[in-house]
Amino acid sequence: MTILGAAETFKRDWLDGFVTAYGRSVRKVPGAYGVLRREEAERKVAVVIGGGCGHYPAFAGLVGPGLADGAVVGDVFTSPSAEQVYRTARAAESGAGVLFGYGNYQGDVLHFGLAARRLAAEGVESRTILVTDDIASGPADAPERRRGVAGDFLVFKIAGAAAERGEDLAAVHAVAEKANANTRTFGVAFGGCTLPGASEPLFTVGENEMELGLGIHGEPGVRTVGRLSARELADELVDGLLPELPAGDGRVVVLLNGLGRTKYEEMFATYTRVHERLAAAGLSPMHTEVGEFVTSLDMAGVSLSILVLDDELAELYAAPCDTPGYRSTGAALAQVPLESTVDSLLTESEQGQGIVDRALTAALRDVEANEAELGRLDAVAADGDHGLGMTRGMRAAVAAARRDEASPSSALLAAGTAFADAAGGASGALYGVLLAETGAGLQGRSGDEVSTDVLADAVDGAVTAFVELGKAEPGEKTMLDAIEPFRLALREQAAAGADVPQAWQKAAQVAVSAAEATADLLPAKGRAARLAERSKGHPDPGATSFALLVTAVGQVLGKED
Amino acid sequence: MTILGAAETFKRDWLDGFVTAYGRSVRKVPGAYGVLRREEAERKVAVVIGGGCGHYPAFAGLVGPGLADGAVVGDVFTSPSAEQVYRTARAAESGAGVLFGYGNYQGDVLHFGLAARRLAAEGVESRTILVTDDIASGPADAPERRRGVAGDFLVFKIAGAAAERGEDLAAVHAVAEKANANTRTFGVAFGGCTLPGASEPLFTVGENEMELGLGIHGEPGVRTVGRLSARELADELVDGLLPELPAGDGRVVVLLNGLGRTKYEEMFATYTRVHERLAAAGLSPMHTEVGEFVTSLDMAGVSLSILVLDDELAELYAAPCDTPGYRSTGAALAQVPLESTVDSLLTESEQGQGIVDRALTAALRDVEANEAELGRLDAVAADGDHGLGMTRGMRAAVAAARRDEASPSSALLAAGTAFADAAGGASGALYGVLLAETGAGLQGRSGDEVSTDVLADAVDGAVTAFVELGKAEPGEKTMLDAIEPFRLALREQAAAGADVPQAWQKAAQVAVSAAEATADLLPAKGRAARLAERSKGHPDPGATSFALLVTAVGQVLGKED
Repeated sequence: MTILGAAETFKRDWLDGFVTAYGRSVRKVPGAYGVLRREEAERKVAVVIGGGCGHYPAFAGLVGPGLADGAVVGDVFTSPSAEQVYRTARAAESGAGVLFGYGNYQGDVLHFGLAARRLAAEGVESRTILVTDDIASGPADAPERRRGVAGDFLVFKIAGAAAERGEDLAAVHAVAEKANANTRTFGVAFGGCTLPGASEPLFTVGENEMELGLGIHGEPGVRTVGRLSARELADELVDGLLPELPAGDGRVVVLLNGLGRTKYEEMFATYTRVHERLAAAGLSPMHTEVGEFVTSLDMAGVSLSILVLDDELAELYAAPCDTPGYRSTGAALAQVPLESTVDSLLTESEQGQGIVDRALTAALRDVEANEAELGRLDAVAADGDHGLGMTRGMRAAVAAARRDEASPSSALLAAGTAFADAAGGASGALYGVLLAETGAGLQGRSGDEVSTDVLADAVDGAVTAFVELGKAEPGEKTMLDAIEPFRLALREQAAAGADVPQAWQKAAQVAVSAAEATADLLPAKGRAARLAERSKGHPDPGATSFALLVTAVGQVLGKED
Repeated sequence: MTILGAAETFKRDWLDGFVTAYGRSVRKVPGAYGVLRREEAERKVAVVIGGGCGHYPAFAGLVGPGLADGAVVGDVFTSPSAEQVYRTARAAESGAGVLFGYGNYQGDVLHFGLAARRLAAEGVESRTILVTDDIASGPADAPERRRGVAGDFLVFKIAGAAAERGEDLAAVHAVAEKANANTRTFGVAFGGCTLPGASEPLFTVGENEMELGLGIHGEPGVRTVGRLSARELADELVDGLLPELPAGDGRVVVLLNGLGRTKYEEMFATYTRVHERLAAAGLSPMHTEVGEFVTSLDMAGVSLSILVLDDELAELYAAPCDTPGYRSTGAALAQVPLESTVDSLLTESEQGQGIVDRALTAALRDVEANEAELGRLDAVAADGDHGLGMTRGMRAAVAAARRDEASPSSALLAAGTAFADAAGGASGALYGVLLAETGAGLQGRSGDEVSTDVLADAVDGAVTAFVELGKAEPGEKTMLDAIEPFRLALREQAAAGADVPQAWQKAAQVAVSAAEATADLLPAKGRAARLAERSKGHPDPGATSFALLVTAVGQVLGKED
């Protein structure tokens, strides 16, 4: 189940909701599936856009000051009829003519064309801008065969700004033509969209494939490729666009558009490389938007659009606009340097010599090997990232311990701080405290001075700090249900006179059993009843990772002998 | 394949792209995974928000004038560490203290709390607003156990506006507390999200199920229900929220938030009923936003948030803001009446008596019965909506023919116009022309006067008009490849002296064969090579629907005898 809404009435239903939700900005065209700006315009060129629906904010969401005056709304992926176009244009026009703008599809061309002829017969002048930005849908020497995709937004933005500042129909049309001639888009899809009422997606893309050039209605692409990384994808898109761009002074607007299911963070991860490549090609992105401008219901995929600027286009693009789907306060365009956030990744160097380093490295290997399983256990009742967090935390802990080997104490303190910082989350803070407080308990002791008694005391202190911070109690199916039996077993071994390796290994066995036993525990309080139900039969992920960790450490200690 | 980006470096990668794309508005915190406004602020309370990532525009996308001063970015669905929070807050604060804002999750509470203590030790005052809007995550009498979800946005908007107008820390904190106390959210999920690097979704929801109250990290919901319509879903959400809302004067802000995969049109289709229900409960939505504010990667689902206003909250909510993820020009809030776009649906009345009506009704039944198959054929190389469009068009054509039965000519003219208007798209226009022009060819004739010769002439005229409009040629694998053989066969039958039913049925058989033969045609030109490849072996959907239609008409004509 993905699409909410009955197929037959989908257009009417969502349009009702749209004019109700954004009644402060738009109103409906009487007797037609179309919308107009709420405030009646002064005499100006009416920019009337449209096409099939399923592409929000295109087209109805782009009606408002600085952008379109009206939008005609067709059924899903289907052009509106000539009658609807005519009624919307008549309602939108204010005496200075109509500029029609739409993507180049046969149905739209037919119906908008018929409406334009009817308007002409009634003495209303109109011109048309057919958007043809999609480089995948036709050869470069026959742009009239290319479709309009996300470039729609860029072209309409320019046309809307020109009309808003009072230019006449010929001038608005001319600058919109220039914008279209200067705009190119190349897209990629990873997965199909589902039409309202349909139980299957409109099309599918192979699990490990991407389809370059696929259209916004699922039209076939130009090439199927294997699964690309964000960086490789950026290269494909830029490589496709660069040879196609018209000459300019280097200033460009860049639009990275999501088709629906591919989300913002993924697009940002792709954008860095796009920016690098454009800069390397001598282009200066003066304004970038990363978001959803021309969607395709819940299709997975992105498209990259580039508008080559000149002074006129730059001024119009920078003008403010205010619509339900896109608002701009009208900033001056400025070149922005490429920024890099951080902090090189930790490099995997040779294993160090300290006992803490070796023990934590062994633990890291086991955590890495079990990352997916820890994630699965966590996903039973929470967000499934425990494995990832543990890996991140342990890597940082190992690196920190390696840098600070003066004593077991200082290595553990450094490891704990690094773990908390790298892992984040509640378990990051809690593991961080365990490591750091154990280190604090060993302060002033060299490795040789750590007896079982000393170690058991240090662990006692760490567990006390852990309980204070975490506020959990035994029996609530948390990490504590493995930690507390471990602490008690270690204390008992110390009392019995066991040496450190023996004592630790014994306690680790107890921790493993205790972690397994959490599968039968039901959370006593503080968690929802459904969570209890769901997690029944599954060991707690935190208890499991703790058991893993102390077991790995025990093996290293055993080899010391 | 859904999520673009490597798991290990996801946070860094997208944050790099974000500060690069929106460098005009934000800059990074030196040495931390955090962002600040580009322009250094005057002395004011620094609103510092944050949490795990995967929720864009929350949290980094909400940094800018009128909203947050800084945002700390954790790993996917994982709180940032205390160190990261501390560094971001230090970089954001400008001498008037820090207001921390975040959703109520254990990890965030731990790490932001540690950072706040460290700031206090250094003499920097801070206060904290824990957002607790999610009614599904705890009982009404223990709001401190509830999580923060989409209400984050509303609370941060209020706090940001208060800080922007220069209020002191105590005042900003007080009004943010009021906003949180006045905000409630209830959500529903239809499908799980996929974490970066994972091959499986974090969780799944049954094909025909929805999970009410599911959290933004996949935390278990409170109730699983069957698949609801948009209207029923609106009722569930409103029914959940109404008993929870604090008293007020009726003014509310409404936020319908998409979790990632559920798209705008679907949310609008849901909103109408939300608005109706709120109005019926005496509430006046003064400002509505329908969009993506707090997402969960590509999770399918929506949440409904309501903020109960008073004069102070209304003034702050209406203040302008300008961030990468949300911009408001700061309109005055105003009540908007419920609008309904249209035009009641055509009602299915009893079958009429005219021959055109009966013939079209038979055709409609066959089209309805084959709607899914026509869609499948269309989806091979196009957008899969041919079946839907034909059904819509034929229903409207039947209704129009029924209303206008003066003569076959007038009935067909009315049917053609109605078909084009209702179906839209290229095939809507083309079928409309076929029907209307056949009607034009019969003008002035009663039913009895329509001989085979007269009918063949009318069809000739209609096909001529069709070719002019559609610009296709035989052999291009379009509707025309069934229509032209039909026309020729009818003409041949007329020459041979066959009566109308015989002639039509014979021509219809020819059309069926011709439509089937399109499976072996490859488009000769004007379409992409890949399309040709894909559609090989599949008959053209337009040719198929034409053959269906004339066959059904032939059966009705046969019964006339």
